[in-house]
Amino acid sequence: MINKLTLIGVGLIGGSFALALREAGLVREIVGVGRSAENLSAALGMYVIDVSVTDPAQAVQGADLVLLAVPVGQMGESMAAIAPHLGAHTVVTDVGSTKQDVVTLARQYLGAHLSRFVPGHPIAGAEKSGVKAARGELFRERNVVLTPLAETDAAAVELVTRLWQGCGAKVSQMDPADHDAVFAAVSHLPHVLAFALVDYIARQANAEQLFGFAASGFRDFTRIAGSSPEIWRDICLANRDTMLSQLVAYESELAKIKTLIERGDGAALAELFGRARDARQKYLKNP
Amino acid sequence: MINKLTLIGVGLIGGSFALALREAGLVREIVGVGRSAENLSAALGMYVIDVSVTDPAQAVQGADLVLLAVPVGQMGESMAAIAPHLGAHTVVTDVGSTKQDVVTLARQYLGAHLSRFVPGHPIAGAEKSGVKAARGELFRERNVVLTPLAETDAAAVELVTRLWQGCGAKVSQMDPADHDAVFAAVSHLPHVLAFALVDYIARQANAEQLFGFAASGFRDFTRIAGSSPEIWRDICLANRDTMLSQLVAYESELAKIKTLIERGDGAALAELFGRARDARQKYLKNP
Repeated sequence: MINKLTLIGVGLIGGSFALALREAGLVREIVGVGRSAENLSAALGMYVIDVSVTDPAQAVQGADLVLLAVPVGQMGESMAAIAPHLGAHTVVTDVGSTKQDVVTLARQYLGAHLSRFVPGHPIAGAEKSGVKAARGELFRERNVVLTPLAETDAAAVELVTRLWQGCGAKVSQMDPADHDAVFAAVSHLPHVLAFALVDYIARQANAEQLFGFAASGFRDFTRIAGSSPEIWRDICLANRDTMLSQLVAYESELAKIKTLIERGDGAALAELFGRARDARQKYLKNP
Repeated sequence: MINKLTLIGVGLIGGSFALALREAGLVREIVGVGRSAENLSAALGMYVIDVSVTDPAQAVQGADLVLLAVPVGQMGESMAAIAPHLGAHTVVTDVGSTKQDVVTLARQYLGAHLSRFVPGHPIAGAEKSGVKAARGELFRERNVVLTPLAETDAAAVELVTRLWQGCGAKVSQMDPADHDAVFAAVSHLPHVLAFALVDYIARQANAEQLFGFAASGFRDFTRIAGSSPEIWRDICLANRDTMLSQLVAYESELAKIKTLIERGDGAALAELFGRARDARQKYLKNP
């Protein structure tokens, strides 16, 4: 149980974390800081937060935990705004989808408080946004990856771990660079591939005809191209080097398939497609 | 109403066509030809077919309509087996996912019967297979594209159109080359992209870790990589030239995005991702 949680950013992720902790009886008071008065008012109405505050300095006073749940592009600014006002016992964590850049910002802006900062990434719901989509079950059975630094207090990691577990999440730890490589492959790359396919088709002269004949496979494949352009721009830029090497590796996979089609090598094509199908069946459960 | 329907290939598509026509009261007798005794016996048990016959020559005797519902790779062989035995009034149609190659085979094997052949492609259910997955509603509200030739009898096109409409499908017509270009873009290309991503990840040393952190976006994106390797090998080879030009065009879209990430051009990235998201929202309904 913690006494006071401060959310910097009251959207889908911050709001769902608050609701989950509240439902688990793990928090007494929740303070929210946000830019949109309308959104904060919705958060108050939904009982996601108890108090809305516009000044981050005031909001973090006496907090046991501060959750930075703003887009990666606003992370540095948010850290700078709270750093001078953090109490000695306050633990800070974040929910950014990329971790090396957040760690760099933390080293730059959190100063002496760095050892009480636990970089984190809950793997859940990127397609909807805003506090109205928040729900306490969002993280149940989902992965949360923490990427603590050599300097990070063990007790701070322990607190953040326990709270995420209280939300029903499976918590694991990774090195920040490993984290960014894993999610570049299984999340950032497919998002870029889906955006690319839809943009490519939308630019054709007969786009309306093409979309008109797209079936359920296309809809599933491109579902993630319905995600926020701003969030994915930020992620691509924050994880730039890893993204570029993933794109290069994927291009060489495509080039290999192109060569097989060119040569008419049906046996090798069926083998590659079959390997993919088997791996998918082995590792992924269809919900 | 037709008197006799002959299915060459009694799987998901052929079986569902039979069930739909039967439910609509549009056919009197259904004869099935297949390679697997077990599958034919299931088809008889499900009342998909009334009679199973092993000899195609015998099966097509007196048929009003012959549906070629075999993989594209067996199409030529099936045409050759039935051609000498077709009655003058019998109409032949197929369900192949590619049309230029089927038309070439029809010119080669159907001879004098070419004018009674109506090339067709129902856009439905590629992930499951076998007659046990067949259901009469499969084609309801789905697109069926017919690609008649200059030589095709208008009455034959009319019959095939009415029967698909009787299954609840929306029937349209296209030139075979246009058909293959449209489906290369919205179906064949995304299948190859999904197979490529899963194969790429499966080949990594930490594949198990990577799949372990894949979330719902990845699962949706790669759902079509669960499709039949043999069917998609056949489609890639049957539609080779169009597939290759689609892959080249997609590669240049990816190269463009790579350059934007390299340059750190956030504005252009957000614009491209936003254009994709908007196009998706405009054209596709999420079921």
